[in-house]
Amino acid sequence: MNDPLADYKKIHEISRETRILEGINSLLDWDQETYMPSEGAGIRAEQLKTMAGLIHKNKTGKPFVTALSKLIDLETGKVRVKGLGKSKNAALKVWRRDYLKQIALPTRFVEDFAKLTSQAILVWRSARQENSFHRFAPYLEKVIQMNRKKADLLGYQDHPYDALLDLYEPEMTTKKINPLFSNLKTFLVDLIRKIQAQPEIDDRFLFGKFSAAKQVAFGHKILKGVNYDLQRGRLDFSTHPFSSACHPSDSRITTRIHPTSLLSSVRSILHEAGHGLYEMGLPAAEYGSPLGDAVSLGIHESQSKWWETRIGQSRAFWEHYFPLLKKEFKSLEKVSLESFYRASNKVKASPIRIEADEVTYNLHVILRYEIEKALIEGSLSIKEIPEAWNARMEHLLGLVPSSDKEGCLQDIHWAMGAFGYFPTYTLGNLYAAQFFSAFEKDYPQWKKSVAKGDMRFINTWLEKAVYCHGQEFSSLELIKNISGSPFSINPFCNYLKSKYQDIYQL
Amino acid sequence: MNDPLADYKKIHEISRETRILEGINSLLDWDQETYMPSEGAGIRAEQLKTMAGLIHKNKTGKPFVTALSKLIDLETGKVRVKGLGKSKNAALKVWRRDYLKQIALPTRFVEDFAKLTSQAILVWRSARQENSFHRFAPYLEKVIQMNRKKADLLGYQDHPYDALLDLYEPEMTTKKINPLFSNLKTFLVDLIRKIQAQPEIDDRFLFGKFSAAKQVAFGHKILKGVNYDLQRGRLDFSTHPFSSACHPSDSRITTRIHPTSLLSSVRSILHEAGHGLYEMGLPAAEYGSPLGDAVSLGIHESQSKWWETRIGQSRAFWEHYFPLLKKEFKSLEKVSLESFYRASNKVKASPIRIEADEVTYNLHVILRYEIEKALIEGSLSIKEIPEAWNARMEHLLGLVPSSDKEGCLQDIHWAMGAFGYFPTYTLGNLYAAQFFSAFEKDYPQWKKSVAKGDMRFINTWLEKAVYCHGQEFSSLELIKNISGSPFSINPFCNYLKSKYQDIYQL
Repeated sequence: MNDPLADYKKIHEISRETRILEGINSLLDWDQETYMPSEGAGIRAEQLKTMAGLIHKNKTGKPFVTALSKLIDLETGKVRVKGLGKSKNAALKVWRRDYLKQIALPTRFVEDFAKLTSQAILVWRSARQENSFHRFAPYLEKVIQMNRKKADLLGYQDHPYDALLDLYEPEMTTKKINPLFSNLKTFLVDLIRKIQAQPEIDDRFLFGKFSAAKQVAFGHKILKGVNYDLQRGRLDFSTHPFSSACHPSDSRITTRIHPTSLLSSVRSILHEAGHGLYEMGLPAAEYGSPLGDAVSLGIHESQSKWWETRIGQSRAFWEHYFPLLKKEFKSLEKVSLESFYRASNKVKASPIRIEADEVTYNLHVILRYEIEKALIEGSLSIKEIPEAWNARMEHLLGLVPSSDKEGCLQDIHWAMGAFGYFPTYTLGNLYAAQFFSAFEKDYPQWKKSVAKGDMRFINTWLEKAVYCHGQEFSSLELIKNISGSPFSINPFCNYLKSKYQDIYQL
Repeated sequence: MNDPLADYKKIHEISRETRILEGINSLLDWDQETYMPSEGAGIRAEQLKTMAGLIHKNKTGKPFVTALSKLIDLETGKVRVKGLGKSKNAALKVWRRDYLKQIALPTRFVEDFAKLTSQAILVWRSARQENSFHRFAPYLEKVIQMNRKKADLLGYQDHPYDALLDLYEPEMTTKKINPLFSNLKTFLVDLIRKIQAQPEIDDRFLFGKFSAAKQVAFGHKILKGVNYDLQRGRLDFSTHPFSSACHPSDSRITTRIHPTSLLSSVRSILHEAGHGLYEMGLPAAEYGSPLGDAVSLGIHESQSKWWETRIGQSRAFWEHYFPLLKKEFKSLEKVSLESFYRASNKVKASPIRIEADEVTYNLHVILRYEIEKALIEGSLSIKEIPEAWNARMEHLLGLVPSSDKEGCLQDIHWAMGAFGYFPTYTLGNLYAAQFFSAFEKDYPQWKKSVAKGDMRFINTWLEKAVYCHGQEFSSLELIKNISGSPFSINPFCNYLKSKYQDIYQL
């Protein structure tokens, strides 16, 4: 008779090798964005392709499937054995789910998709440069066709978009998101109107000339402050900030230094540190099993938003860090903490998502969600995008982008073929708020400690609440376990209401 | 009937994938020495092990062997088909040779060897620190036993050392090296005695305090000067300088900046650039086939020595670069080019190989060659090493190391298990000299151009003479093809005699 634990270990072992290869892939990506000589791009693409092939082979190979199907019925998802315990049973289900996704897409389709999107990215780049949606449209058309095909191959119940969404945020569906986003939209539009009726906050002192070296030095102070471990990670520079998920002991981040905008690098460093801390906090002994992996893109984003906004845009945080910032940048000498805090939380509609404040940001995401869902279901045609985009932007934020470059061409996601990705940005904000409400119950005095520069207790709390479970629970289960309530937009709305009532004296 | 060219392409294709994996491995090594967070060492070792397994599998897998044995008889080495042409036939022979080496060592042996040497390296490090040969001896004993076993597994005709040497310098044997090294030793000892009878050169101005940033800036000037392409490579910093062989379009180097020794980084940059230029110059279309690979360690070393010594320690080179160096380092203001040239070529016996000048250097290598050959054949016991080392050092260089730390414990090679590696250092010098004699016939006026900072013609010459052939010819064939004469120590001896007669007025 077989020993289920031995079989389980076998699966973990094969899966660990896969994860090691994925970690190598992360490093190749990291190097590509940081240090790779420009001419190395060609061979790098081949290296990544070779690794992707090996990873796919491991994930769908006979050794893995044979071992897995001993313990779980691949068709029904029923665990076949007893006594493994809850968390290992959960891991088996995730392994099965990911395996079914892996085999749903034929290699040929995956290759064609990769080829198309790599072309589409190039075309998007120059179309954006030239502000020519027209040039990008035929490629976007094909990308959408392939995404529909992808949805069909993956399968879905209600809406083809659900199949795509599930790739980034497992078990999330349009049925669940629609009412949430719809209510959130109403709330945000209303809040923004109230804010827009108030006098504009003066934030001019956040813009000027700020030494890059000093920004980097200050960034390192912040990393130390949030207990990002520089023996297990590092900070480098890239055009687009990112974090790299190689292993809990090697989890690197990058930032971009903006020479004229003081808080740009601070925010991206806190954001990426949030991702990095999550990766560092995942249980290393479970590396390669779902119990050692991040839950979803949305939960990952909740960690970056937690540190970027909930901590990094709090008054308490700057009580400690503003004096240090002032020491570095003499131009802030006469700025009060209160003015600084208000300026750093200024709400102002902008056409560009990545520059948005934490109130308007989610409307950008909802706009994209609505449009891409309509594109996938076929209720919106490609050529209607610019008009639909601008109309919604005007309705939601009261502004019309001056060009498609500032409008529907601004993001790379569609060119990348990543339909279903955008909602995870707002889900991340919502999850973070719901986690935070539980955290505040455990630490009602958190602001006092943060104001003294002490944040270790936050790391400890997140470690126990989120990191240590890996993928034992789905996003929605995790939310429920931690907060005691089902997922809702209320914690986020309450947070925004209270914070911005205070800032704007609404 | 089969199409030999199609079969050949198939072999190249499989081999190309192997080479891609090896390139990824190089990058992992590079990252480990430059940017990897310290705690990442554990997972990095696993990544490298996983990749090594995949590479071994590719190199010995059925697809490769089946394809290869269609075209060449794996037992006899006879090419089975006609019409592929000389270079492809040569490639088949190299593929066969490497394959036979791959399968000669059982996986178990390779793993045990790797485990032993990784322990031995750790022990060597602390033994060296503590100046305790006694501590290292039992590990060295095991390493030598395993090297003897390795030689038996690989097979040899005359001497077990030949099997090991062949791993680094194919087709080289003790029978070929013994008379060369013996004559070279006599020549060098005699030359050094003559030099030692002359007044010592004053080189004090090469030591002092030299800004690291300026050293790096000057290093970049030199890289540009020797036409090292920074779009296809880069310069970073590591404890031990090295060059990384990923692909002709991504060939990086590192250096170490010595804050008190002016020429240390210049030399290591030129040395590593020599390796890097070779990698960049290999034909990219042949990547993955022997025709796209470096001939041997010795030929690789000839390229580094070419740029480090033949060019970088020439009077002509400094005619152009000394004024630039003076601009950076004011302390050189009153130093004449002639004093600088003489100082930078000062010959002085030192116990440390890596600090040696180009005359004494080779005696260090010959000493190690003689000792390790004696260890492998069993005519010298481990415990006799320190005494044998010191006695030879005294005989060859007229000095006795003050401790084993400065003596037989100084190099990492034996701890790494790399017996047979050392001779390639001196072979590199000899090859470089013989290549250079041919180069001088083609460009008798080379000094004039170099003195103007023009070195492009040197790159072009090396490209055509060495780089473009890959492994089509063995080291000795290449020497013969380029210089028109069989391999000999004469070009090197003539070069040293003429250069140092001039410098020391012998």
